[in-house]
Amino acid sequence: MSGWITVAGLGPGDDALITPQVQAALERATDIVGYFPYVARIPPRDGLILHGSDNRAELDRAAHALRMAAGGRRVVIVSSGDPGVFAMASALFEAVENGPPAWLDLDIRVLPGITAMLAAAARLGAPLGHDFCAINLSDNLKPWSVIEHRLRMAARGDFAMAFYNPRSRSRPQQFGQALDILRAECGGARLIAFARDVCKPDERLLTTTLAEATAEMADMRTVVIVGNAQTRRLGRFIYTPRSA
Amino acid sequence: MSGWITVAGLGPGDDALITPQVQAALERATDIVGYFPYVARIPPRDGLILHGSDNRAELDRAAHALRMAAGGRRVVIVSSGDPGVFAMASALFEAVENGPPAWLDLDIRVLPGITAMLAAAARLGAPLGHDFCAINLSDNLKPWSVIEHRLRMAARGDFAMAFYNPRSRSRPQQFGQALDILRAECGGARLIAFARDVCKPDERLLTTTLAEATAEMADMRTVVIVGNAQTRRLGRFIYTPRSA
Repeated sequence: MSGWITVAGLGPGDDALITPQVQAALERATDIVGYFPYVARIPPRDGLILHGSDNRAELDRAAHALRMAAGGRRVVIVSSGDPGVFAMASALFEAVENGPPAWLDLDIRVLPGITAMLAAAARLGAPLGHDFCAINLSDNLKPWSVIEHRLRMAARGDFAMAFYNPRSRSRPQQFGQALDILRAECGGARLIAFARDVCKPDERLLTTTLAEATAEMADMRTVVIVGNAQTRRLGRFIYTPRSA
Repeated sequence: MSGWITVAGLGPGDDALITPQVQAALERATDIVGYFPYVARIPPRDGLILHGSDNRAELDRAAHALRMAAGGRRVVIVSSGDPGVFAMASALFEAVENGPPAWLDLDIRVLPGITAMLAAAARLGAPLGHDFCAINLSDNLKPWSVIEHRLRMAARGDFAMAFYNPRSRSRPQQFGQALDILRAECGGARLIAFARDVCKPDERLLTTTLAEATAEMADMRTVVIVGNAQTRRLGRFIYTPRSA
């Protein structure tokens, strides 16, 4: 038995952002586990089994991967972006905590990747160049009131902010409420940027102000970045000075 | 004239974390600019000029790179980690803003890298698996009172936190003050992790509680991660659940 399990970040979409470390793990794997569109990014080869699964099946997927590793398979769970940022690494450890004690003795590794907010920031300039927060705006796993509180604390600390999962069809109103909170806390002149499908062929970047921003500018494929009080436009870029 | 300027992230130290996108830029460059130890990571080759410079010379370094790009050179400014996170991207845009207007017309790109906090998080488990903040604890470019305020807001929002530049010889007291604030806000049982020289041969990882943490556990080569109220140990790992 020499099974292992690795959670690997594929970055936001461009294969040129996949680290050699992740590439090497993919090449040694017997099994790839993950959400369908991420598994679809892995080229098939002899001896490699691809296990695509649905979104929101994170715990089942992690347990399946752990059972295979315990049985001697070499398993890579693929994640978009960085697996440690609103992705599969925490789900894997939740599954380990809830599973048989022997799972803790498995060879478990997390391999970082380029997370969407940092890819978006690079494409926009340097909006996260000073102190910042990352907030998941989905209330699937936490109450919306916690999200509202975190938005207020982040605004009062004058952090730049990056939002993951800003808006979905099942909760179209909440992102508008988040914008209302931010306008009240930060004022209408504060810069906000929407990066959709970042580093993919259909990438779309939009920078505007909180006063002009509307909820429809975001969907689940968008990362949203809000500047701090010093964040400014500079030609086609936005950036936050280091002294902010 | 076909000069360009790219700010590229080399990741935290292991070359297996350098993206193919950054590698390609390095191979096309005529000039590499950066802090000495980062430039030392680039293998010399015919036709490539290496320009190492001192720490804290960020604006001079950026202006030098911009002048070379304006003169037709293909310049890569190398940064540790991700250039957009407490690194050279913001310094470059500050230099552009303070320089001749023609610099804004240059071909300027930022290429993301694996930033230290996400490399450290991956080595530790998944401590940044839910909402988190990144804070630079250096007061070189901002008042210490701003840092204290941000620590309190981050704690009151129950964010996990990552600290860059936690402690230097020139300001040995401040990190102890930061720990005092965190103990007062979060309680002594809160988990804190110190990752020194992450992904380098001398890597050292230490997880403890705020009650047991001392200022001497950190230096400038350490990234510090503080959990949120839900962050827990699990065998040799620490992680933050997705519902936190």
